[in-house]
Amino acid sequence: MANTSSLNIDPKRVQEMIDLFDPYLKNKLLPFWLENSIDREYGGFLSYFDRNGKPTGKTDKTLICQLRMIFTMASAHRAGLGEGKCLQAAKQGVEFVIEHFWDKEFGGWYWITDRAGKILDDSKIMYGQSFGVYSMAEYALASGEALGREYAEKSFDSIQRSATDTYAGGYWEMFHRDWSRKPGGVYGGDRKTLDVHMHLMEAFTTMFELTGMPTHRRKLEEIIRILVEKMLDPKFGTGLAQFDQNFKPLRAIIFQNVWGSDRPPEEEARPLNNTNYGHNIEMCWLLKHAIDTLGADLEPYKPIIKKMVDQAYEWGVDWEYGGIYVEGPNDGPATQTLKEFWQQAEALTGFLDAVLIFKDKRYWDAFENIFNFVWNKNINHEVGEWYALLEQDGTVKWDYLGHEWKISYHTVRAVIQTLKRLRELQKMLSE
Amino acid sequence: MANTSSLNIDPKRVQEMIDLFDPYLKNKLLPFWLENSIDREYGGFLSYFDRNGKPTGKTDKTLICQLRMIFTMASAHRAGLGEGKCLQAAKQGVEFVIEHFWDKEFGGWYWITDRAGKILDDSKIMYGQSFGVYSMAEYALASGEALGREYAEKSFDSIQRSATDTYAGGYWEMFHRDWSRKPGGVYGGDRKTLDVHMHLMEAFTTMFELTGMPTHRRKLEEIIRILVEKMLDPKFGTGLAQFDQNFKPLRAIIFQNVWGSDRPPEEEARPLNNTNYGHNIEMCWLLKHAIDTLGADLEPYKPIIKKMVDQAYEWGVDWEYGGIYVEGPNDGPATQTLKEFWQQAEALTGFLDAVLIFKDKRYWDAFENIFNFVWNKNINHEVGEWYALLEQDGTVKWDYLGHEWKISYHTVRAVIQTLKRLRELQKMLSE
Repeated sequence: MANTSSLNIDPKRVQEMIDLFDPYLKNKLLPFWLENSIDREYGGFLSYFDRNGKPTGKTDKTLICQLRMIFTMASAHRAGLGEGKCLQAAKQGVEFVIEHFWDKEFGGWYWITDRAGKILDDSKIMYGQSFGVYSMAEYALASGEALGREYAEKSFDSIQRSATDTYAGGYWEMFHRDWSRKPGGVYGGDRKTLDVHMHLMEAFTTMFELTGMPTHRRKLEEIIRILVEKMLDPKFGTGLAQFDQNFKPLRAIIFQNVWGSDRPPEEEARPLNNTNYGHNIEMCWLLKHAIDTLGADLEPYKPIIKKMVDQAYEWGVDWEYGGIYVEGPNDGPATQTLKEFWQQAEALTGFLDAVLIFKDKRYWDAFENIFNFVWNKNINHEVGEWYALLEQDGTVKWDYLGHEWKISYHTVRAVIQTLKRLRELQKMLSE
Repeated sequence: MANTSSLNIDPKRVQEMIDLFDPYLKNKLLPFWLENSIDREYGGFLSYFDRNGKPTGKTDKTLICQLRMIFTMASAHRAGLGEGKCLQAAKQGVEFVIEHFWDKEFGGWYWITDRAGKILDDSKIMYGQSFGVYSMAEYALASGEALGREYAEKSFDSIQRSATDTYAGGYWEMFHRDWSRKPGGVYGGDRKTLDVHMHLMEAFTTMFELTGMPTHRRKLEEIIRILVEKMLDPKFGTGLAQFDQNFKPLRAIIFQNVWGSDRPPEEEARPLNNTNYGHNIEMCWLLKHAIDTLGADLEPYKPIIKKMVDQAYEWGVDWEYGGIYVEGPNDGPATQTLKEFWQQAEALTGFLDAVLIFKDKRYWDAFENIFNFVWNKNINHEVGEWYALLEQDGTVKWDYLGHEWKISYHTVRAVIQTLKRLRELQKMLSE
C-alpha cells in the first residue's frame, strides 16, 4: 500500500464525486458551450450569456475568450470528449483568430474585434499573448495539425522577440500594436505581474510538451525561476501581485483595459501584505504540471507549494459557508470574502493536487468543502455553466455565465482536471 | 567658430591624412579584397592569405569571415565605393550563407563549413549570430533588397527567441545546434561577455537604423543599459571581460572554439583589474553611434566614454614606438605590449570620435600616434591589407593578412570611418 493510511478518505465518497462530475461535464457543461458559443455566422466564438444561458446581445470578440475557447475545446478533445465535435469547434476558432486576430505585420495577436473580426483594439497585451501560445499548442497536440504548431511557434517567437526585458529579465506586459510599450501607472507599461508570468509558465509548459525543443525547455525553466525566486513573498512564500522592472514588489493597482476591469475601481492600491488564494493555488498545480512536463524532480518545489497551499487552507477557505475567498493578508482573515467562480475552479484542482502530493487529509477537507460549494452554489445546473460571482454565503451576486473575460476555460478545465485527479486518488487509495 | 581653438590641429595635417587614406582605401585595401576574396568557384568568400596576400591553401569557411565580408562589402557600397562591385560581392556572399550557413530547422547560423558549404561545426555561437544581424541589416540598407531585411529579422528573432536569459537579463553565448546551452568553463556556456554584448549593440544599432521598429529600438536601449550599468568596472569605468549569470565579474578565461582561439593558451585566468584598450575604445565609438542612431542625447554618456578614452590614452598608447597595446591593469602599465591589428583599427575611429566629442588635443595626439604606426608599420602597402600582430616596436610577429577570424571588417571599416571623421573635423576646424 502507498502511504495513504493517514488520508482516511472514504473511496465511496470519491466515486460519488466522479459520478456527479463525469455526467455533468459530458451532458451539461460541455454541451452548453458546444451548442451556444460557436458563431456559425462569422466563425469564432460568442461569449456573452446571461444567467439563463441566453445571448445578452453583445457580440464583440475578445482575444482571451476566443483563445480560451480554442484551448477548452482542444483540451476536451484530448480528454476523449465530444466525439470530434470539440476538435471541430476548436478548428473553426483557430481559423477565425488566425484570419482576424493575428497581426501579419508586427506579429502577435490583437486584443478585441467586433463579431465579424474587424479590429476594435489593436493592443498587444501579454496576458492574451500567453494564451496564443497555450491554445495553439493545445490545438496542435489535439489535432496534430501543422497549422497549430506554426502559430504556437509564431506566438512564442513574438513574445520572445518583443516582450522580454533583456535588461532585468522577465517580460513586459502592455504594448501598443507595434510593440512599443504602453505608458506606466494604470496603463501597466512599467509593471511586471505574477498573473502574466504564471500564465506564461502555463503556456510554455504546453509549448514544451508539444515540441520538446531546448529553447522551449529553457524558457520554461527560466520563468519557473522568476516566479519562484522573484515573485513570492520572502516571508510568507505566497504570491506578490505586481513589481517594478527589477522585481521590487509594488502595491497592486488595477490596470485599465484588461481582463480585471469588470471589478469596481479601487480608491487606493492594495497593501503588500495581501495575497490572492485562487492565484496561489492555481500556481501550485500549474507549477507541479510544469515540473512533471519537464521530467524534473518535484522535491525541491514541495516546500514552496506547501506554503501556498497551507496559507490558502488557513485563511482562504470559508469553513462556514464553503468555497474560497478572493484575497486577504497573509497572516489574517480574508478582506474580500466574495466567491469568484475561477478561484473555486482552480482551488478544486489545486487542493486535490496537494492531496496527491502530500497525502494530507486537511487538503482533502478543503477540496471537499469547495467541491460542495461549487456543486451546490456556483453551478447553474439547469444551464451547465457557473455563475460569475457569489456573495460569501453563496447568493448569486453577478449572475452572467459568459462575457468579455469569462468563458469556459476555468470551469471545463477544472472539471476535467478534477476528474483526472479523483481517478488517480482512487487508484492510490486502492493500492 | 566652434570651440575648437584649444584643439590647435593643423588643417594641413588633416588633409594630408585624407590624402593618404582615401587613395589607399580605393586603390589598395578594397581592391585587395575584391580581387582575392570572392570564391568564384563555390560562392562566398576565401579568407586565408599569407603575408604576400597569396592563398595559404586553407579554404574552410567560418561564419565570422563570411558575414564580415558581407558587412565590409555592403558598407563600402554605402560609402560610395566600388561602383557596384562591392554590392555584387556582398550579394553573392548573402546567397552563399543563406544556402549553406542558415539552419532552416532551428534557426540561426552554423559556425564553420568547408569551401563548398558542407557543415563542419554546427554550433550556434552568439558572437557569430550578432554578425548575422549586423551584416544582413547592412546589406539590406546597401541594396534595398527584401532578402536582406528578411534574414536580418530572422537572425534577430532567433537571438531573441533562443539566446536571451529571461531570468537575469542579457544573452547566453554558446549553444549547440539546437540552441541547448554548451557546458560551462572553457566551453563558455555559463558566462556572459562584454565582447558579445558589445557586438550585439553594434548589430542592433544597424537593425534599428534599417527598420525603425519599436522592438529593435527597445532591444538596443536595453543592451546599452546592460553594457553601461552592468559590464563596466565600478571603480575605473572600463570594460570588464566576463560575468556569471547575474553579471558578477569573473576572471577572464579563453574559450575553446572561438575567434580568440588563435591566441596561445593561458596558464591561469586573467585578473579582474585588467582591461582591453581596443575593446574599450571600440565600445566608445559604437556606443556614440548607437546613441546617435537612436536620436538620443549623448550628454549622459559623455562621462562614461571619457573614462574609457582617458584610460586608454594614459596606459594603452605606446608613446615611444606608437600604436596601442593589447591589455593591462586599469591603473598601471600594459602587461601585454604586443600590437594587434584590430585594436589599432578601432583606436583610429575611437580616438578621432573623442576629438570630435570633447575637442581635446590629447586625443588628437593619440590618434595621430596610432595613425602613423598603422601607416608605417601595420599596413602591408604592397598588398593592401594589414599584418595580424606586431611586436611592441612594430616588427611583424604574425604576418598573415587573412585567416579563420581575420578579415576585412576592422580594417576597411576603420579606414572608411576615419575618413568620414577626418572630413567632419575639417569642417569643424573651418567653421
